Amino acid sequence: MLQEGDRVVKLEDLMGRRGEWLRGEGPESDIVMSSRIRLARNLADFPFVRLAGETERRQIAERVEAALKDSPFAPHLMPLRVDELSELDRHFLVERQLISREFAEGQGLRLVFIDHQERYSIMVNEEDHLRMQVMRSGLDLEPAWKLINDLDDHLERHLTFAFDEKFGYLTACPTNVGTGMRVSVMLHLPAVVITRQMDQIFRGLEKLELVVRGLFGEGSQAMGDFYQVSNQVSLGRSEPELIAKVGDVIPRIIEYERKAREFLMNESQENLHDRVSRAFGILKTAQTISSEETMHLLSSVRMGVHLGLISGLDTPTLNELFLLTQPAHVQKLVGTDLDSADRNIERARFLRKRLNG
Amino acid sequence: MLQEGDRVVKLEDLMGRRGEWLRGEGPESDIVMSSRIRLARNLADFPFVRLAGETERRQIAERVEAALKDSPFAPHLMPLRVDELSELDRHFLVERQLISREFAEGQGLRLVFIDHQERYSIMVNEEDHLRMQVMRSGLDLEPAWKLINDLDDHLERHLTFAFDEKFGYLTACPTNVGTGMRVSVMLHLPAVVITRQMDQIFRGLEKLELVVRGLFGEGSQAMGDFYQVSNQVSLGRSEPELIAKVGDVIPRIIEYERKAREFLMNESQENLHDRVSRAFGILKTAQTISSEETMHLLSSVRMGVHLGLISGLDTPTLNELFLLTQPAHVQKLVGTDLDSADRNIERARFLRKRLNG
Repeated sequence: MLQEGDRVVKLEDLMGRRGEWLRGEGPESDIVMSSRIRLARNLADFPFVRLAGETERRQIAERVEAALKDSPFAPHLMPLRVDELSELDRHFLVERQLISREFAEGQGLRLVFIDHQERYSIMVNEEDHLRMQVMRSGLDLEPAWKLINDLDDHLERHLTFAFDEKFGYLTACPTNVGTGMRVSVMLHLPAVVITRQMDQIFRGLEKLELVVRGLFGEGSQAMGDFYQVSNQVSLGRSEPELIAKVGDVIPRIIEYERKAREFLMNESQENLHDRVSRAFGILKTAQTISSEETMHLLSSVRMGVHLGLISGLDTPTLNELFLLTQPAHVQKLVGTDLDSADRNIERARFLRKRLNG
Repeated sequence: MLQEGDRVVKLEDLMGRRGEWLRGEGPESDIVMSSRIRLARNLADFPFVRLAGETERRQIAERVEAALKDSPFAPHLMPLRVDELSELDRHFLVERQLISREFAEGQGLRLVFIDHQERYSIMVNEEDHLRMQVMRSGLDLEPAWKLINDLDDHLERHLTFAFDEKFGYLTACPTNVGTGMRVSVMLHLPAVVITRQMDQIFRGLEKLELVVRGLFGEGSQAMGDFYQVSNQVSLGRSEPELIAKVGDVIPRIIEYERKAREFLMNESQENLHDRVSRAFGILKTAQTISSEETMHLLSSVRMGVHLGLISGLDTPTLNELFLLTQPAHVQKLVGTDLDSADRNIERARFLRKRLNG
């Protein structure tokens, strides 16, 4: 089953591409890296994934594949058997935000359909039978909602989803019951971090039933001053309400970041300039550098570019550097598995090449 | 008195020049910055400087000036009334190693004769009536001894020095009695510092009655991994014995440094390369930088150049950067007095300009 057609790219082809969320072109893209909407769905005729055997997993995958087959989405989709990929390839997809870390590290038959432009992906046999997500560069939730709604409508014409009149869509985890929707916005907040206002923002969002996570979702530390804000509960509210809930609070966080940048520029522009300029200098000269330090320094440089303190670099290039310097991407660039020490050397080599060009 | 003649340069002219000890050309000049010999002399007919009134100071100065007047040294000498110089100019001369810090900060009529090429200088009314010193780039004590001996012989033909048959030359401080000679070698020992062997070397030198000081002599902390090794006592030994005492031990310290560099290159070349390369990167991009950090980073870069880890920079240029980034030199470069914060900004501007050229 699931052969790649002529129009379907290979996983390797993603490497040279700049996926949707790296475009750096959407609204507020200096501060908002990307917007994402995810829907969780389950087929009514099958047990939840964690209770499903291999045969049922296969049947689920085949149903989804059939439903997508003649859809307007099909020409853009690359199906990948995630359980047959190497660990490196799976981490590669996690770093590109195309699959979840849990999905990468899971067990049993697992499938993902990836849009060639990485605008959306559909995981089959994640925690739920279907996890579809749409990504947009910048703060751009409405188009994301329109696209994922179309995708959901199309699938629902061919599949029967587990649905309860009272609760809504049924999901493996209670927090997803209802709309099955998670709305997430990834923000770059270096000035808020420097001015130590992040805790305050955390507390404010908690009261609004919103959660904040680091770059790679649950359980990961915030690296490179990237924070993802999402709704915690998906029950009892309509999809537009959930989108509005997240969408309304983001401009206020953006305002915090802009104010903090303004403050730093007014109060200590020389120090700020020094910080971002040195960060750029280190990235251009290091001979060995960890992923964590790279993100930390790139974060300073990214802010510096947007404040006009550094020239000659654009947002898409910078966004791409965050991605290409992740561990799996470094190994894909070199074309071989590397231990941590060698990755640090290759990462530094890559950065020097790209930034001294 | 003491007008500048036609052949005499102005203090400002020193700025654009590379003095003798910056040449970076003498023996072992990758590790030995400079060699220096200093002689202390007093005129028999006058009390020591600390007991001399202004009239006596003036008479001492006039005697020395007269003694130098028709000497072969005269055409190369610029006389400067140090007590009439601004604080900035005095610190400028201290940084160039042409006068001592004590001399700069002293009281009363004080004079210095400076060789145009900064190969030697003669302080009048320092702690002793005469403090003459000769500087050489690299480990080069013999020529230094020859020159200062000539200078001393010439002066002694015109002046009567306080001399005791039993003790030798009499000086204001007992540690200088005898030969009145101090032999000093300035070493650059970054690898010894990294491998934490400096304490061991300190203890060894102490047993040999040698002292170790930071870059700017007594009381100053070692900055930029520069250490000056000198004899502690000048009594009871001949001049050649004192020179041999210092001269014999220096190759052993050089050997320590070479071994330490070799060890670092073998054991952790990537880390060493990373350290020196980042140091270079920061120097090229910082927007504000202290004198201390500059010396620390230049020290890494200097070692990196000598180990072939950094290219495109030569030793004289590097040596000069150590000097030109000192506080008084930064102010002379800009042409105005600056507070510490502004100096740090101008220092960074100068480094960026020089290193990104």
